[in-house]
Amino acid sequence: MSATTSTSPDGPALGIDIGGTRLRVAVVAADGTILERTARPTPAAEADALLASLRELVEEYPHLPVGVGMAGLVDPRGTVRYGPNIGVRDLPLARELADGRDAPVVVANDASVAALAEQRVGVATGNDDVVLMTLGTGVGGGIVVGGQVVLGSGGFAGELGHMVVHEGGRKCPCGNRGCIEAYASGTALGLITRERLVDPDLVTSLREIADPTGPDVTRAAADGDPVAIEVLTEVGGWLGVAMASIVNALDPDVVVLGGGAAHSVAAIALPSARRSMAERLVGAAWRTPPPIELAALGDDAGVVGAALLARDRAAASPIPSA
Amino acid sequence: MSATTSTSPDGPALGIDIGGTRLRVAVVAADGTILERTARPTPAAEADALLASLRELVEEYPHLPVGVGMAGLVDPRGTVRYGPNIGVRDLPLARELADGRDAPVVVANDASVAALAEQRVGVATGNDDVVLMTLGTGVGGGIVVGGQVVLGSGGFAGELGHMVVHEGGRKCPCGNRGCIEAYASGTALGLITRERLVDPDLVTSLREIADPTGPDVTRAAADGDPVAIEVLTEVGGWLGVAMASIVNALDPDVVVLGGGAAHSVAAIALPSARRSMAERLVGAAWRTPPPIELAALGDDAGVVGAALLARDRAAASPIPSA
Repeated sequence: MSATTSTSPDGPALGIDIGGTRLRVAVVAADGTILERTARPTPAAEADALLASLRELVEEYPHLPVGVGMAGLVDPRGTVRYGPNIGVRDLPLARELADGRDAPVVVANDASVAALAEQRVGVATGNDDVVLMTLGTGVGGGIVVGGQVVLGSGGFAGELGHMVVHEGGRKCPCGNRGCIEAYASGTALGLITRERLVDPDLVTSLREIADPTGPDVTRAAADGDPVAIEVLTEVGGWLGVAMASIVNALDPDVVVLGGGAAHSVAAIALPSARRSMAERLVGAAWRTPPPIELAALGDDAGVVGAALLARDRAAASPIPSA
Repeated sequence: MSATTSTSPDGPALGIDIGGTRLRVAVVAADGTILERTARPTPAAEADALLASLRELVEEYPHLPVGVGMAGLVDPRGTVRYGPNIGVRDLPLARELADGRDAPVVVANDASVAALAEQRVGVATGNDDVVLMTLGTGVGGGIVVGGQVVLGSGGFAGELGHMVVHEGGRKCPCGNRGCIEAYASGTALGLITRERLVDPDLVTSLREIADPTGPDVTRAAADGDPVAIEVLTEVGGWLGVAMASIVNALDPDVVVLGGGAAHSVAAIALPSARRSMAERLVGAAWRTPPPIELAALGDDAGVVGAALLARDRAAASPIPSA
């Protein structure tokens, strides 16, 4: 990648998505177009190595606003309180990367910036109020209200996977019970299926697999397996329950389903989620339920959203160039 | 009340709160101070009589922005889709009242404007991100994000009473099951208590009352009745579950508990809600739970919030005076 040296309100920004295995990096134009991109392995569980790698990346673009998205809890000043994928805690990442730069650096949760990306240049373009739910190993989310991403008081907003839909119910990886993540994640998909297989009378191709996981179930459903289809329908129904809760709270223009598992579950789970959500909305007789759309930006949502957030921040508080 | 004739960005606005029995009206200064106030009976279940009464009121203040708050679903253009207290449907209230005026008229849900009032001049002053839950016969709510009230795509935001906390559980007046309103409203308080009284071994002063209601239970709890205290603790715990869901989603600075029943349940239900919410927040080790505070503005929240929303609207799109 070559250095880009112009700074302007309509200029590009650098987006970085710190994944569990890969650092994705892109120079992103104001309209969300990716002008340049690269990737490298994420230095594992080592704050110093991660910082060195990120510094090297951002130094190539000294005049661009920088946005970083990552899984975990990031406070409003860009300190990573907890980053499960990279094993860091209390790392003042924005401050470390901003050192000596003349353009702002922002760090935020990856699903929050993905929501911003979908709202600005993805499937929800043209809508001011957008809720993104992400479906992968777990369930996450991001929220845009009035065209601005909601990061929350401490930067912890968008943790939609831990909305409680069945108090006292299934155990969630977070330690509580009844979170939507315990009912509708990729992990839950495998778990619910394995529980069903205890019934010896159930006829299903899934018996051929020792311990079927979420991906096994979605594959079997695509092949027409009735048990897999039933489980995916149930999981979609649970997603709709959580969506109803957040739609009753925020009444967004659109709900976006994203994350690694979204496309593979969509054919069965989405219609089920739509029905389930619609049934639970207040004032059903006086409103049209918001559409539930599949995310459009795929793996690019993180870098694009991070870059767009950095542009927002640069526009709100421009740093005079030296 | 005398006519106020000045229009200015820092000037007062007229707030109207359409309750089930009373129309509250106030001229409210920019700082939330009530400069004048009056009230009259709400014309019952009659759109024409209501309109005539409201027109008469607003015509006294031809140059003031007007904000109207009311229970029900109000769309972004100020059309009342459904107003349960006043028996109207699809009434274009903002348009009807704006006719011939040189200042804007806004109509919005009463709990949403109450949230704005608490955020601007009430218990949550100084905070940008505020969630209000209201506890009365039912459960309602209002949300402020980034200092702006969230009305939602169709104006239906803030229906926190219908967040699902126990899918398939108790029947809610809305027709669904498992909404927080089915577990933590004044109505639910009476219902849960009456269910407990089926146990003949339970020793409680509530046996002296034929069919104890919510207010009976709060009175008995204040007098130290152990069953009443237990039920209020349980209800507070449920409130905390719903608060955890919305706090995980939005990470507000503060959660405000308001509505007619809030003060009478507070001594027992609030500590219980705080514990229950804190246990269910993501990243408990890395954050401080937001405080849960009692609403400060009481019955004035509606008129004050409606007036402040009208001022916001006037500032955003000033109508040139004739």
